[in-house]
Amino acid sequence: MNAGSISAATVAALVAGVPSGSGARGSVPRGSGPGGTPQPPVPGATPRSGQPAYRELAIRLRHLIGDGRIPVGTRLPSERDLPVALGVSRTTVTRAYAVLRDGGYLASRRGSGSVAQLPGGALPAHGPLIARPSDASTIDLTYAALPASAGTLQAYERALSVLPRYLAVPGYDPVGLPETRAAIAGWFAGRGLATEADQIVVTTGANAALAAAAQALGRPGQRVVMETPTYANAIHTLTAARLRPTGVPMIGGADVGYGWDVETFAATLRRSGAPLAYLMPDFHNPTGALMPAGQRAELVDVAARVGATLIADETFVDLPLDLTDAEMPAPLAACGDGVITIGGTSKAFWGGVRVGWIRLPSTLPTSRAKSSSTGAELGSVRALRDQVLYARHCLDLGTPILEQLVTVELLAARVEIMRERREALRRQRDVLLSELRVGLPEWACSAPTGGVNVWCELPRPVASGLVRAAQPLGLLLAAGGRFAVGGGMESRLRLPYTVGEDRLREAVRRLRQAWDVASETTPPETPWPPLVA
Amino acid sequence: MNAGSISAATVAALVAGVPSGSGARGSVPRGSGPGGTPQPPVPGATPRSGQPAYRELAIRLRHLIGDGRIPVGTRLPSERDLPVALGVSRTTVTRAYAVLRDGGYLASRRGSGSVAQLPGGALPAHGPLIARPSDASTIDLTYAALPASAGTLQAYERALSVLPRYLAVPGYDPVGLPETRAAIAGWFAGRGLATEADQIVVTTGANAALAAAAQALGRPGQRVVMETPTYANAIHTLTAARLRPTGVPMIGGADVGYGWDVETFAATLRRSGAPLAYLMPDFHNPTGALMPAGQRAELVDVAARVGATLIADETFVDLPLDLTDAEMPAPLAACGDGVITIGGTSKAFWGGVRVGWIRLPSTLPTSRAKSSSTGAELGSVRALRDQVLYARHCLDLGTPILEQLVTVELLAARVEIMRERREALRRQRDVLLSELRVGLPEWACSAPTGGVNVWCELPRPVASGLVRAAQPLGLLLAAGGRFAVGGGMESRLRLPYTVGEDRLREAVRRLRQAWDVASETTPPETPWPPLVA
Repeated sequence: MNAGSISAATVAALVAGVPSGSGARGSVPRGSGPGGTPQPPVPGATPRSGQPAYRELAIRLRHLIGDGRIPVGTRLPSERDLPVALGVSRTTVTRAYAVLRDGGYLASRRGSGSVAQLPGGALPAHGPLIARPSDASTIDLTYAALPASAGTLQAYERALSVLPRYLAVPGYDPVGLPETRAAIAGWFAGRGLATEADQIVVTTGANAALAAAAQALGRPGQRVVMETPTYANAIHTLTAARLRPTGVPMIGGADVGYGWDVETFAATLRRSGAPLAYLMPDFHNPTGALMPAGQRAELVDVAARVGATLIADETFVDLPLDLTDAEMPAPLAACGDGVITIGGTSKAFWGGVRVGWIRLPSTLPTSRAKSSSTGAELGSVRALRDQVLYARHCLDLGTPILEQLVTVELLAARVEIMRERREALRRQRDVLLSELRVGLPEWACSAPTGGVNVWCELPRPVASGLVRAAQPLGLLLAAGGRFAVGGGMESRLRLPYTVGEDRLREAVRRLRQAWDVASETTPPETPWPPLVA
Repeated sequence: MNAGSISAATVAALVAGVPSGSGARGSVPRGSGPGGTPQPPVPGATPRSGQPAYRELAIRLRHLIGDGRIPVGTRLPSERDLPVALGVSRTTVTRAYAVLRDGGYLASRRGSGSVAQLPGGALPAHGPLIARPSDASTIDLTYAALPASAGTLQAYERALSVLPRYLAVPGYDPVGLPETRAAIAGWFAGRGLATEADQIVVTTGANAALAAAAQALGRPGQRVVMETPTYANAIHTLTAARLRPTGVPMIGGADVGYGWDVETFAATLRRSGAPLAYLMPDFHNPTGALMPAGQRAELVDVAARVGATLIADETFVDLPLDLTDAEMPAPLAACGDGVITIGGTSKAFWGGVRVGWIRLPSTLPTSRAKSSSTGAELGSVRALRDQVLYARHCLDLGTPILEQLVTVELLAARVEIMRERREALRRQRDVLLSELRVGLPEWACSAPTGGVNVWCELPRPVASGLVRAAQPLGLLLAAGGRFAVGGGMESRLRLPYTVGEDRLREAVRRLRQAWDVASETTPPETPWPPLVA
């Protein structure tokens, strides 16, 4: 595998932490870097923290290779060129390269210079991690999830350096480390939602948070109101918790944008007697819709009046692409009392961390002295917290300590990480949308302002057939029906822009081929669907 | 905090990896080490892997401090004495100490030499991790769980070195990494139970494994048969999965040893129509009983005939104290078809890792073409695997990648780690039992041959009162009723020997005090119990 070479100027820019104009894996710019030479002081030349310059340089290059900003197989600049670009001595570069070679991050081959590699070898990027018939050339668009963000490896290293503090305790932690809860509470506070650490329960991912909340607040056979389409796993998780999902259709469409019908939502809540409603107000999965502030207040108000608890899933809230953080509407939980918020690190940072959270409300609606769900006193937030903790404890006994420490580090580096993340996602979204316009002009596709998904309207209800036609072409897709409460949506398809630009172009090429097949044939019965995330 | 000093000979023995005769935290032997001077070659003098000797020495000392074998606050040997004991140059020791000081593992104070510390400061050892009214002097015997084993920090460091391989994939892994499943399968195979990696599902702990299995195999309202007493969280988890636990009493007693009544078990299985039974045949929690081979075969046979699935919880199987691994009875799943085995890293290694597993059977009993639990075809192991995976996916979407890699490392180092673990546990068990004989002669206490618990029979049914009396004395206990299916057992108490010898002595002293209070008073109604693990 050879991903080409990388110029000394680009390496210098990356080492200095300058956005390289290319955060995407596999697309490090060739030739001269931004502006030709790096402007800010090169950390290799001005070592921090008492490290020798060569060691600091080695650490930075290791991180760049480790998290894919310098792709595996890339030829690094020669030991003659790099010192000039970095403004350091040749010895510094030579020794740094030696450290990288010792650590398995650099292979020196006669004639091809020093090539980036990973100790143990790289897994096929973008290939599915869970077992599916597949190879490296398969493009998996069933997952609306990204590779690890830049900075993930550093977060793990920093977390490991403080892990010894915790080795003397048994390590069961169903509530969450104080520092992790404080970091999550601080992230909420930064979004204008004052939050105490005691309002946070750390879980093994956002889905586990939903499972615990559903277990705590619903009784078998009760209804749960949710959007349709919605997050596929939420349907499964709430059903597994013995609740009966009732879908409220999203309104609008790809042309005018998707949105919520608050009136129908309110009527459904009232009629169903559901103790719970599950919502994704922030870049709704799969439509990408963002709920306006006015509707948020209305919905919270309605729920309080009928005595239902709203669960706001904020999985994608950290991924606005056309808005700044400051322009985001206030969190649903900031619009009234009693809202439970769930979220996690999986979509914004990395799915491999598996840390999520439940934010409990600080106050409950005055109308709700008794819960309609269990008959138990829910008049106090403390009783609610006990119920949620108990339910969580019956699913798993705690979140791994190290992953919690990693979460603290990721949240601390959030602004910088998200800048790069969003930049890459914007580019990938734009590539996907323009390729779809050209390659599949008969489709109507949403133009999301955040999140990672495009929701496509097909002119014929053959999404399942399309999925089947695409598989032998090396393209894995999730048909619209997967996201529908109660089935249907055979004329819908979710396309995440979570893989690199080149792969998105190739994906649309294969999609066009598959569409030509599928749109000519009538689909047979759909089989039991595989899992998605 | 000062834990005393440690001799150069002891440090040399620890650095060389010689069992020091004291794996217990806080009880590193003072004075000369075992045999006066270490026999095997000191790794500091014969560096491996191309590391300079000073760096290898620093790494080893860091691990010893990090995992508590050199307790925080211990004064290390002087830079004059240690070189002699290690057979290395003074420069090597001086430079190694400098590396440790830079990393925050050593504080050099005028007059008190070089003192072990942890970067960021240590948490109170043995204090509860989850929020409870407590301080460092509180002894928490509600948790039957140990601090991290020696070797845990190394396992994390090795795992982190291969993490970059995985950063390019989304990281959702509901099945388990191939290498982790292979390592777990290999561990089963080493115990005489041939296992393919495909039979393993990796979960976020053994309790999550139970939750997934219960969700997959039981329907709301159905019975589940289990021992009473049993693991407290299993009662909660199975109840939360909407099953109704039916207890089969353990027979025998502290004097003659505890055991199983297979006939009653069989009759209860038949009568209840339970699709599931949950068992802990290997150092049953809380009695410590070990099921004889003959009974294993009988139980598996009975379950197959009535069409119930046995779930064997092997949480403590790696902790025999008076038997060798070879002397252990065959696993329950080796005694016939259709047994589901669950286990994890929490008890043997560390609860903070949160990795568990489900081992699915390779064959099902011929009698079971249809499951009595769901009506679904369970004729194939493949269908069973799909059901379990689906249920697991509805609880959480996967196990953290790094923790899975840590598990591979821990299992690879298992033999060495368990040698030290078991040695410490044997000493702690013996101290607890002898202290109980002297301090509370009116009690009858089990003498477990493995696991971490002593099960005590009190001469009066006042266990809840005893727990209340102990708390203000700084001793947290779990009353027998916590482990009883359907309540009762007020004359029983579980005492884990999971804290160091000195603390066990102090615990029994406080226990005696509390007993004097409790045995004189009649207990009021018990409140809602707090969580245990």
